[in-house]
Amino acid sequence: MGSVYVALLHHPVLGPEGQVVTSSVTSLDMHDLARAGRTYGVAGTFVVHPSPPQRLFVRRVLEHFLKGQGRELNPQRGETLEQVQVAADLDAAVEAVEAREGRRPLLAATSAREVPGAVGYGVLRERIGREQAPILLLFGTSWGLAPEVFERSDIRLAPLRGARDEGFNHLPVRSAAAVVLDRLLGAP
Amino acid sequence: MGSVYVALLHHPVLGPEGQVVTSSVTSLDMHDLARAGRTYGVAGTFVVHPSPPQRLFVRRVLEHFLKGQGRELNPQRGETLEQVQVAADLDAAVEAVEAREGRRPLLAATSAREVPGAVGYGVLRERIGREQAPILLLFGTSWGLAPEVFERSDIRLAPLRGARDEGFNHLPVRSAAAVVLDRLLGAP
Repeated sequence: MGSVYVALLHHPVLGPEGQVVTSSVTSLDMHDLARAGRTYGVAGTFVVHPSPPQRLFVRRVLEHFLKGQGRELNPQRGETLEQVQVAADLDAAVEAVEAREGRRPLLAATSAREVPGAVGYGVLRERIGREQAPILLLFGTSWGLAPEVFERSDIRLAPLRGARDEGFNHLPVRSAAAVVLDRLLGAP
Repeated sequence: MGSVYVALLHHPVLGPEGQVVTSSVTSLDMHDLARAGRTYGVAGTFVVHPSPPQRLFVRRVLEHFLKGQGRELNPQRGETLEQVQVAADLDAAVEAVEAREGRRPLLAATSAREVPGAVGYGVLRERIGREQAPILLLFGTSWGLAPEVFERSDIRLAPLRGARDEGFNHLPVRSAAAVVLDRLLGAP
């Protein structure tokens, strides 16, 4: 069974008009992703941002809970955030997984929109079970991952939808990530 | 098929030492719950709080997005929050559902811990499909719903767990609610 990693990309992602943008870090996302990641046995979570001050902000929040006053006040939060790493771009996250696992991860891109060649969750869940290579699940902030991320991904996941689908699918990325992890790694 | 409603309780919930407490409103929770609720076709979401100033705060945030400047800047957010209502306690939420549906809702309590007599998600999903009565899904903030809420509930849901369960299950309630809605109302 391959290890599963998560990367939250703030660039390249889409803005409301479909242009490629860079979004700001949301400190809450890293907590929620880490809590979901730990619940579902994720091996590591990357916060990916091209801006050094934004990465520094993430590191400062992490340090507060890993080593600072937050560790004393809320030790469980620190333990949970141990899996979070910072990366300047997707390549850096891929390299970090490869350095740890000794194998290049397969990239699995998620989207709230229909994408050509998308696979269902059962297919990827089964593949994770038999795959030796690690899997890096990619989530986009803002209006989702830019097309270039899909083009370089090995797997594209179908969008999450309700059975009573009314055409609205705009889950927060932190919620979507928890649902995707549950579908791929949840106990029935 | 019965309509599904969600209630987020801030009282009676448990504190870290197992005492019954009242937690503070988190404005983000109402946004995330409403977005998940709309994605999965929930008929209404209740923010339940016994304190009038806390309920007023929720109403002010709602008004900003429903009628105020937020409606102009982000109309989709206003549309999404239309499903959110405020209630002073669980009884008030139950009465609001009954007034709208003409039937008393069945109460389904969620927990991150094992509870006696819990049913699986497939069982409740199937029951929602054949049930005429509305279902009110109950989520607790802080360390989860107090025992008295379980005692009066018709259904108790098993805790969410990862297949690679390592004994950690502390999803944020906003993430847990999205996962539960996906399990009960998601398209496969």
